[in-house]
Amino acid sequence: MAKKVPHRLYLTEEQMPKKWYNLRADMKIKPDPLLNPSTLEPLKVEDLYPVFCEELANQEMDNTTRYIDIPEEIQEFYKMYRPSPLIRAYNLEKALNTPAKIYYKFEGNNTSGSHKLNSAIAQAYYAKKQGLTGLTTETGAGQWGTALAEACAFYNLDLTVYMVKVSYEQKPFRKTVMETFDAEVIASPSDTTEVGRAILKNDPNTGGSLGCAISEAIEKAVSTPGRRYVLGSVLNQVVLHQSIIGLESKIAMEMLDEYPDIVIGCAGGGSNLGGIIAPFMQDKLTGKASPRIVAVEPASCPSFTRGRYAYDFCDTGKVTPLAKMYTLGSSFMPSANHAGGLRYHGMSPILSRLYHDGYMEAVAVEQTKVFEAAVMFAKHETILPAPESAHAIRSAIDEAILCRESGEAKTILFGLTGTGYFDMTAYSAYLSKQMKDYIPTDEDLQRGFDKLPNVEI
Amino acid sequence: MAKKVPHRLYLTEEQMPKKWYNLRADMKIKPDPLLNPSTLEPLKVEDLYPVFCEELANQEMDNTTRYIDIPEEIQEFYKMYRPSPLIRAYNLEKALNTPAKIYYKFEGNNTSGSHKLNSAIAQAYYAKKQGLTGLTTETGAGQWGTALAEACAFYNLDLTVYMVKVSYEQKPFRKTVMETFDAEVIASPSDTTEVGRAILKNDPNTGGSLGCAISEAIEKAVSTPGRRYVLGSVLNQVVLHQSIIGLESKIAMEMLDEYPDIVIGCAGGGSNLGGIIAPFMQDKLTGKASPRIVAVEPASCPSFTRGRYAYDFCDTGKVTPLAKMYTLGSSFMPSANHAGGLRYHGMSPILSRLYHDGYMEAVAVEQTKVFEAAVMFAKHETILPAPESAHAIRSAIDEAILCRESGEAKTILFGLTGTGYFDMTAYSAYLSKQMKDYIPTDEDLQRGFDKLPNVEI
Repeated sequence: MAKKVPHRLYLTEEQMPKKWYNLRADMKIKPDPLLNPSTLEPLKVEDLYPVFCEELANQEMDNTTRYIDIPEEIQEFYKMYRPSPLIRAYNLEKALNTPAKIYYKFEGNNTSGSHKLNSAIAQAYYAKKQGLTGLTTETGAGQWGTALAEACAFYNLDLTVYMVKVSYEQKPFRKTVMETFDAEVIASPSDTTEVGRAILKNDPNTGGSLGCAISEAIEKAVSTPGRRYVLGSVLNQVVLHQSIIGLESKIAMEMLDEYPDIVIGCAGGGSNLGGIIAPFMQDKLTGKASPRIVAVEPASCPSFTRGRYAYDFCDTGKVTPLAKMYTLGSSFMPSANHAGGLRYHGMSPILSRLYHDGYMEAVAVEQTKVFEAAVMFAKHETILPAPESAHAIRSAIDEAILCRESGEAKTILFGLTGTGYFDMTAYSAYLSKQMKDYIPTDEDLQRGFDKLPNVEI
Repeated sequence: MAKKVPHRLYLTEEQMPKKWYNLRADMKIKPDPLLNPSTLEPLKVEDLYPVFCEELANQEMDNTTRYIDIPEEIQEFYKMYRPSPLIRAYNLEKALNTPAKIYYKFEGNNTSGSHKLNSAIAQAYYAKKQGLTGLTTETGAGQWGTALAEACAFYNLDLTVYMVKVSYEQKPFRKTVMETFDAEVIASPSDTTEVGRAILKNDPNTGGSLGCAISEAIEKAVSTPGRRYVLGSVLNQVVLHQSIIGLESKIAMEMLDEYPDIVIGCAGGGSNLGGIIAPFMQDKLTGKASPRIVAVEPASCPSFTRGRYAYDFCDTGKVTPLAKMYTLGSSFMPSANHAGGLRYHGMSPILSRLYHDGYMEAVAVEQTKVFEAAVMFAKHETILPAPESAHAIRSAIDEAILCRESGEAKTILFGLTGTGYFDMTAYSAYLSKQMKDYIPTDEDLQRGFDKLPNVEI
């Protein structure tokens, strides 16, 4: 018999995790190494130092340390907006008339509006500690850019953000939020970098992509003294920092004598998904439990469900190392899906490995169905979700409906990554029935696969 | 010696208040009664029934019941987004280098983005219980309209919102949020009501005002079967519901062995101010303690600091009862201040009485100084405040600076009513130095005073 479950459970500061959990330590088959794009040799950690902060490069390469101490300064910052609540969706359950118990971990209660701040503050901290004067990055939906702007303002670091043009145009106020925190925001592709100019020359009307903005941000970082490049997803270090989401969730569920049968996360580059599943995946890797773990991605950018598991560039301009991951090809240009944070051609190498090895499932959902779930959720749970987050809601609702049909009282946990206050253009399109679903054809995908680098090691 | 204070303190569900506190019960001199605008006789409760829900009308007239039970259904709804955290502003204190201890009660962690949901859900609940089919209201900044839209969606009630035109234009996405919750949103003044048409005829280019939107919403309510009118501020019932803010704050401070020397709230119509100060004002009224209580209002709409304490209409169209309150005159048309929620000519009769009787102080602040405080707060506390809330921040910072100068370690509590995600037009104007301060001249104010109804009882 489970304990009486409050609507919202907050850990105390004492209960908050003091270490991040490194999934790689428990993986029998590790993610494949990053490759130097010139030599195709596995990268050494020193190779990353010109681009990344040293400590972050070290974390990137660390496949063995199971728990990594969260520096006290970061713990203190976390306390400004964490712990995030674990919420029982009583009203959604009632509206769905389901015997399922639905929980969600809500990461939207900070000004970045999402979980992105968990890694942003860590990355800014290590940059400051190394004596750097500034950072560069890219942002899709704008949540990562906002989070990093907050973190850089806190540590008085300069910041240049390359924002995917389609998001820049859909979300005019996101730019202002970042500027409030003193960031410089540039629509990508732009004429401020060589790679940007080349992309624009090829396709002047492009809406941009995360892959393209990454290329610009890296070029800017390596050409500016005292700067390094940081990234809000995909990387191992990000999955490490985001483990705080899952660790807090697990402690809270233990307090309620609960354990999820299904853990659901939306998946763009993997920052949220890797975070929320981390300790539950550990149980699965170590044989302690076997929850279903479900990645939800947009049907318009289906890296897991229709991509290839292959070595590829992380960016469009092909300046990054090669990573082994599920990918649609770095030349794949996703359609103007409103979930800007999920419009990335690749996927975290850690999560790609786990998916490849059968530890996870993946589903792709169409955006009108996602917004239908978002609106239903908002009405019953009083939180207006980000379109990205609503992918997980869609899947949680679908699982809860299956429970209604089968009569099973499963325990579902999903990650509600953030709020949709800057996504009202998308909501407006949905409400006025102007929203369309885009699903790439096999031919569309094949064009991306054809340009994959031909690498086998 | 105070206990170790966490950054954020959340009460448990068991600790949450189960009764609202009615300030009027402890006031030796009660607020003056509402008057029938035709007869100038004090209103009877039945006179309000055509406009308000019956139970809300009863609450409006109840000057004696000290504690009123919060219905269980409302308590359950509160648990979806409450308790709100009491936050210690450690980083702001550090940035200000002040010995003061600054606490704030943050009400922005729900989709309405503010404290307004506390009263909206109560009002929708009583409307549903009475068997009504819908409500009408006005909204200034949009937070009240959003909150009521959420509440009405939850109870499946129809809702028409008259939104002050200047806010409607400054905040295009606010409308979409309300529409997501199925509300009908109309820019006010509009041609959908007689009073709106009359105002437009007189001044076709007006940006509107809360007073004008109130007139339209009331006309719509009384002319639509099954509808009633609801209001998000000014009224006694709203101050009652909002007492939850202060009650939670006081319990949390008691857990920390703290008591505020100064309690600060921004003041538009008084919903937040009346809420956060309620139990501290009780201590003052009953002689148990004597905290300073400070109302902060915009210099552009200075009801307390430059208004008259007189009987006046609550709306521009002069269809409401007359209330004795601090007022700039119902014909006063505030300039296009960005804190739309504070652009009201009058003030809660309860708070007006308390101010008149010397229980409160008031200060007026200019909007550029308010935004300066908002940006500083955002950078140090990671919350982007609403312009309304930032009035209280400005005052808290000023008090903390005085403490730095005097060396006093005062305990300051302020209400952070909400978030500024829909106010980026205003932030952008501030950041680009396009923001101006408007202060009405004595002549401007005199024009409003000249049109005050000549009523003494």
